[in-house]
Amino acid sequence: MTSLLGKDLVGLERLTREQITAILDTAEPFKEVSERPIKKVPALRGKTIVNLFFEASTRTRISFEFAEKRLSADTVNVQSAGSSVSKGETLVDTARNLEAMRIDMVVIRHGASGAASFLGDRIRSNVINAGDGKHEHPTQGLLDLLTLRDRFGSLEGLKVCIVGDVLHSRVARSNIWGLRHMGAEVGVCGPATLVPRDIEALGVTVFRRVEEAIQWADALNVLRLQLERMQGGFIPSLREYNRVFGITTEKLTRAPKDLLILHPGPMNRGVEIDSDVADGEHSVILPQVTNGVAVRMAVLYLLAGGAPDWATSGADK
Amino acid sequence: MTSLLGKDLVGLERLTREQITAILDTAEPFKEVSERPIKKVPALRGKTIVNLFFEASTRTRISFEFAEKRLSADTVNVQSAGSSVSKGETLVDTARNLEAMRIDMVVIRHGASGAASFLGDRIRSNVINAGDGKHEHPTQGLLDLLTLRDRFGSLEGLKVCIVGDVLHSRVARSNIWGLRHMGAEVGVCGPATLVPRDIEALGVTVFRRVEEAIQWADALNVLRLQLERMQGGFIPSLREYNRVFGITTEKLTRAPKDLLILHPGPMNRGVEIDSDVADGEHSVILPQVTNGVAVRMAVLYLLAGGAPDWATSGADK
Amino acid sequence: MTSLLGKDLVGLERLTREQITAILDTAEPFKEVSERPIKKVPALRGKTIVNLFFEASTRTRISFEFAEKRLSADTVNVQSAGSSVSKGETLVDTARNLEAMRIDMVVIRHGASGAASFLGDRIRSNVINAGDGKHEHPTQGLLDLLTLRDRFGSLEGLKVCIVGDVLHSRVARSNIWGLRHMGAEVGVCGPATLVPRDIEALGVTVFRRVEEAIQWADALNVLRLQLERMQGGFIPSLREYNRVFGITTEKLTRAPKDLLILHPGPMNRGVEIDSDVADGEHSVILPQVTNGVAVRMAVLYLLAGGAPDWATSGADK
Repeated sequence: MTSLLGKDLVGLERLTREQITAILDTAEPFKEVSERPIKKVPALRGKTIVNLFFEASTRTRISFEFAEKRLSADTVNVQSAGSSVSKGETLVDTARNLEAMRIDMVVIRHGASGAASFLGDRIRSNVINAGDGKHEHPTQGLLDLLTLRDRFGSLEGLKVCIVGDVLHSRVARSNIWGLRHMGAEVGVCGPATLVPRDIEALGVTVFRRVEEAIQWADALNVLRLQLERMQGGFIPSLREYNRVFGITTEKLTRAPKDLLILHPGPMNRGVEIDSDVADGEHSVILPQVTNGVAVRMAVLYLLAGGAPDWATSGADK
Repeated sequence: MTSLLGKDLVGLERLTREQITAILDTAEPFKEVSERPIKKVPALRGKTIVNLFFEASTRTRISFEFAEKRLSADTVNVQSAGSSVSKGETLVDTARNLEAMRIDMVVIRHGASGAASFLGDRIRSNVINAGDGKHEHPTQGLLDLLTLRDRFGSLEGLKVCIVGDVLHSRVARSNIWGLRHMGAEVGVCGPATLVPRDIEALGVTVFRRVEEAIQWADALNVLRLQLERMQGGFIPSLREYNRVFGITTEKLTRAPKDLLILHPGPMNRGVEIDSDVADGEHSVILPQVTNGVAVRMAVLYLLAGGAPDWATSGADK
Repeated sequence: MTSLLGKDLVGLERLTREQITAILDTAEPFKEVSERPIKKVPALRGKTIVNLFFEASTRTRISFEFAEKRLSADTVNVQSAGSSVSKGETLVDTARNLEAMRIDMVVIRHGASGAASFLGDRIRSNVINAGDGKHEHPTQGLLDLLTLRDRFGSLEGLKVCIVGDVLHSRVARSNIWGLRHMGAEVGVCGPATLVPRDIEALGVTVFRRVEEAIQWADALNVLRLQLERMQGGFIPSLREYNRVFGITTEKLTRAPKDLLILHPGPMNRGVEIDSDVADGEHSVILPQVTNGVAVRMAVLYLLAGGAPDWATSGADK
């Protein structure tokens, strides 16, 4: 079955503006499904999907699982953090086994960059990347784009700064590709130890001080600080990180305009973001979560060969 | 959607006799659903439910999950014993995330007393307490009430004695509230270290010796002894506990009448209850389990706004 | 409900040739269900099934779960490796609880030989053995039979050699019973430490050298080597095992004909089987996996009282 997106969704790097726009447009009517008393459409009835999570995840897994169930698919969860299946060789056999069981789609999260692409190249089932190492987390990028488009109407020319641990972040990478494809300007800001040296090659502006980023941006996408980075010597202390790079009301009051605040969750309140910002009127952190289900429904639906105009095409029986 | 029960079921303390009666009456026709070849009614079709278990549990989780599936709801399990999500702060964010995903209902088990109420106050989704610390386990209380009503016809004036570790037991607390609301007389009996000093304020009679309780009661609800209580110094030994407080055939033969025997499970056979009592003709331990599914179906159905007379109202298509 | 197979499927030892043939024949139309765009028939709609796995398993559990879902059953997973429920006594209470919840079927995997039979004797629900200790793994045996029948047309007179750790293998045992019932000739070949002394009493031929087995057989069923056997002193080293008993292209080229290659998975590539054999043109390792779903659908369907001619009897609405 050919789909508008090809067989797999591995990342946003290789998508075109037209493809991203189609996903966001398809997500729109799916938003409404989750607001109904009966949150269910039969679009993927009788399709079988495996959620193959090699890294622990609660919210991404739940979001995918409800997206799948609201599309009436049959789902099975496989969670195996740190087990022998995380070895490359065996991933091939796992993949071939899933294909042999005639699984229609595999949603994979894996600690190794490239795992989703590796899997997708080896099976006919559609593969969706739910995060692979430091590479990409495309549905997170898409829900961020949808949330920004909801508020600003268009992404063209929008200035978005990604703040924090850009080096280790697949969320950052998917955001950079997605935003660039859609014509937005992208900044990144974080400790020198956590911003890759060659990042400007991706067409982004590097801000060394968060105060400068705040002067420049329309929106901030605040990344989660992996607390193990402190042991790694990347940052001196959480307190110091918060003082210099934490997004606080005090810093935001110096901005020339109100900045929209995004965060992929889960938050370290008081570290990379203060609670009054996270819960403030310009935060769209919860709308991001709501959009996550709709975007995942759209991706699942399109990969299964659905037409972008599903709401008017009889899929919504 | 307003329901007969309000938004959440946090405990039996605040329910009225009318509300409890409505739940028990609604459970009656649901019992029959589980006896059918096709154990399914469409009452909650398209509703999305999260079973959020911060404490390990097999039987309560299975019972809820089948109750949900027999009502045609879509369910997702989240199990995270001892993880970072068990911290209060993060529970708020977990809750808000679930709400943002438009989850209709959350069934929560948590080690902290008050967790279910805390969650319910912060989200619009219905919340059902599946056990919170030492506070309440309301669906266990309700299934005990239903089982007693099945055998005695009415709960009014019935004498029920709860035997064992009353101090740490949320089952005891839900039973006391539920039985008192329904007009039953409640006794408690256990080691002085395991019966709260101020328990008589709840309107219960304290029996120091289980032989006295047996003389008085119509039914005994035998609590599970948490074996870690022995390390805590609450009881001298399991053997001694069994000799003094264990429910044995030998003790029961001195009763003036046949006592109905309840136990919430899982049992420590030979400790708080002997096998010949647990498996004897006056034991209703397995009917309790059967009633558990029906009572949970009734609670889910009523919280979703269902009418108590569902069986005759067309819900059972 | 009486079924063609009786109440439970505990092993292939007690099945007749007619019963096995009925399962394989019933699996045929179910194969086709998994090739459809909508992989779902309503045969078990409203049935409730528990997958009770006391030993970790990914592929068997997924295979059963999709078999159940493609039959429209409602399923709940219980996984409890190494927990207290693995004790015999508590298994009775677990069983009685599941029955009290009116579970229609239980799929059980357990480390103790006889666990499935023990469970089946104590509850009215249908019980399917998904592997019990060193005893049997009947659905694996059945999928092997189906795969052999697919290629050879008939099992009568077929020569199949099981290679490897026969001593500890429930797969070997189910294969031997199944193949013998169907009129095939069975050989076994492995290190003397891993082949039971009395195995010839089951009507099998023992080959000491794999080269002899290759001369004799039409098909090889290569068992997974449990790597902990090396610590147990059963084999000198993995390299030595591969040299002597590993199935390699080099050994197979000396066979008088092309041998069909089966393996129950997961494979230790380079130990009991080389990759060029596993992925070669005579390997049916992936068709085995595909057949696994169909055979499990057939067993579930027949135990639920379905008629063998389901595809023409209106079950496939």
